[in-house]
Amino acid sequence: MSEQPLGEFDLITRYFDRGAPRRARLGIGDDCALLAPLPAGAVLAVTSDMLVAGRHFLPESDPEGVGHKTLAVNLSDLAAMGAQPVAFTLSMSLPQIDTAWLEKFARGLFAIADRHDCELIGGDTTRGPLNLCVTAFGEVPSGVALRRDLAQPGDDVWVSGSVGGAAYALSRLLGPTPPATGDLSVRRLERPEPRVALGIALRHLARAAIDVSDGLLGDLAHLCERSRVAARIDWSSVPIAMQISGLDEGVQQRFALAGGDDYELLFTAPAENRTGIQALSSSLQLALTRIGEILPGSGVQLVDGRGMPIPVSAQSFDHFA
Amino acid sequence: MSEQPLGEFDLITRYFDRGAPRRARLGIGDDCALLAPLPAGAVLAVTSDMLVAGRHFLPESDPEGVGHKTLAVNLSDLAAMGAQPVAFTLSMSLPQIDTAWLEKFARGLFAIADRHDCELIGGDTTRGPLNLCVTAFGEVPSGVALRRDLAQPGDDVWVSGSVGGAAYALSRLLGPTPPATGDLSVRRLERPEPRVALGIALRHLARAAIDVSDGLLGDLAHLCERSRVAARIDWSSVPIAMQISGLDEGVQQRFALAGGDDYELLFTAPAENRTGIQALSSSLQLALTRIGEILPGSGVQLVDGRGMPIPVSAQSFDHFA
Repeated sequence: MSEQPLGEFDLITRYFDRGAPRRARLGIGDDCALLAPLPAGAVLAVTSDMLVAGRHFLPESDPEGVGHKTLAVNLSDLAAMGAQPVAFTLSMSLPQIDTAWLEKFARGLFAIADRHDCELIGGDTTRGPLNLCVTAFGEVPSGVALRRDLAQPGDDVWVSGSVGGAAYALSRLLGPTPPATGDLSVRRLERPEPRVALGIALRHLARAAIDVSDGLLGDLAHLCERSRVAARIDWSSVPIAMQISGLDEGVQQRFALAGGDDYELLFTAPAENRTGIQALSSSLQLALTRIGEILPGSGVQLVDGRGMPIPVSAQSFDHFA
Repeated sequence: MSEQPLGEFDLITRYFDRGAPRRARLGIGDDCALLAPLPAGAVLAVTSDMLVAGRHFLPESDPEGVGHKTLAVNLSDLAAMGAQPVAFTLSMSLPQIDTAWLEKFARGLFAIADRHDCELIGGDTTRGPLNLCVTAFGEVPSGVALRRDLAQPGDDVWVSGSVGGAAYALSRLLGPTPPATGDLSVRRLERPEPRVALGIALRHLARAAIDVSDGLLGDLAHLCERSRVAARIDWSSVPIAMQISGLDEGVQQRFALAGGDDYELLFTAPAENRTGIQALSSSLQLALTRIGEILPGSGVQLVDGRGMPIPVSAQSFDHFA
């Protein structure tokens, strides 16, 4: 590692430019990148997420995890549309050039990018409070994208994996005795695994989908609002993260239903696809759990195992609430 | 304007969601936007710029100007590739919800977006230090994009409009007696006009291009490096902004050659296209000035009207220098 002051262009060259583009016609280093046309019949899915130090990750978080998460949250949005990742841009505001931080950040970023064959094609670097903005591109055949507005009364509601683990990890990190870096339950928060393969496989099994970023009930409420339907969720069916299973039930509910940051897929599907979805769960080795149903009307209702309503308070995370 | 606290989703709905998408298949409100395929033979140009308060604009800058500039700097990158604007995403980190600021910001943003038929299709909103990140998309027929790496020895070097006005305005704003908002020379800094029509018209006239964002000599050096050529610029030909014409020559040079933020196009073209470029200048009513030539070798040399070298110090703006 050099002791020389590193300029903006050296920084890009050293950490982010990996030579000739693979799928892009033109990659890093010009005023724009050029993306080759998609295969016939495909449309481009576009998503953008901004991560701010102190809000989406802690300033002392492992930079490799920050690199991972910066792209992961965007891949999760592509997954929620059933899109195959193609490429991304990265714009960064950095308080200073910290070569050790940048090297680890880039390692985490490219590890997940390579795993999903998603190419960095451009971006921007400037000085300022630490802020990381990725815009990611995916492709999906025309007409089969999973959307928020396609749920229908009678659909089952499903969720992948488990929920509540990320919010629980955050509460521990912010608590009086934070766990050490590398603690397995913190991985859930810092290294969310976007459900890309699931999203693609659901193109012909699911009707509507959203990723669980702000909290299960809140995200479901967005989906219901866009689809002009209601939903009823059976709390006893919700797959809660192992780490929170011993906690008080009210606390479990807060983490699992309002916690957010799990980046699981929440989706609806007609009942005739249950067998197909269960088979998919086996083939992906990923839990897919039926947790409720879509109804006519509006709003999201939580019930217990006997169908009795459970009152719900904060449903979701709002950055300005 | 409501006195109610405004949440993240209300904010998007109120200021940024303008209803049914025009060209996008799916716009704001889902996990991703969906962009319809481009016309046959076109490729997608992608660019991303991040603007930080206190660095790219002053905290007290007119929010309408900030909205304008946030998109304008990206449209300038599309122009430098000869791309026609199509759509953009906007991700914002805001310290608080200031409805008066947001309303003016959105007005400035959409005014320039509409003028270039460039549609807002998605983005993100979070809380944090003021940061605005746009990723913009344009289309350009395959094989005709202007690039930084296509300059050839013998090419003329041209620049549009005039240079130095933006840097001069910034120096006044930061000086002891800043000009009032609305001062015409400040417009140059706060409302740069991206040279979109010029970029498109240059597809078959120019060879290489770059926009002047960091400073004429520094940006030309990037172009030369990518094209593996050298350049010689004749200072007596450089079209300096009217506002700096009365200043000491050294100061003029600093503003015009190293100041940046002008968002003019700097391009190279074979000598046989001089007549075509002059005709284009007339039809666009935009000065296009021949300021030098591309040579074999490397580096950028500045000479006076008699061809004698002029020593040059800081050539460009580096955010980390």
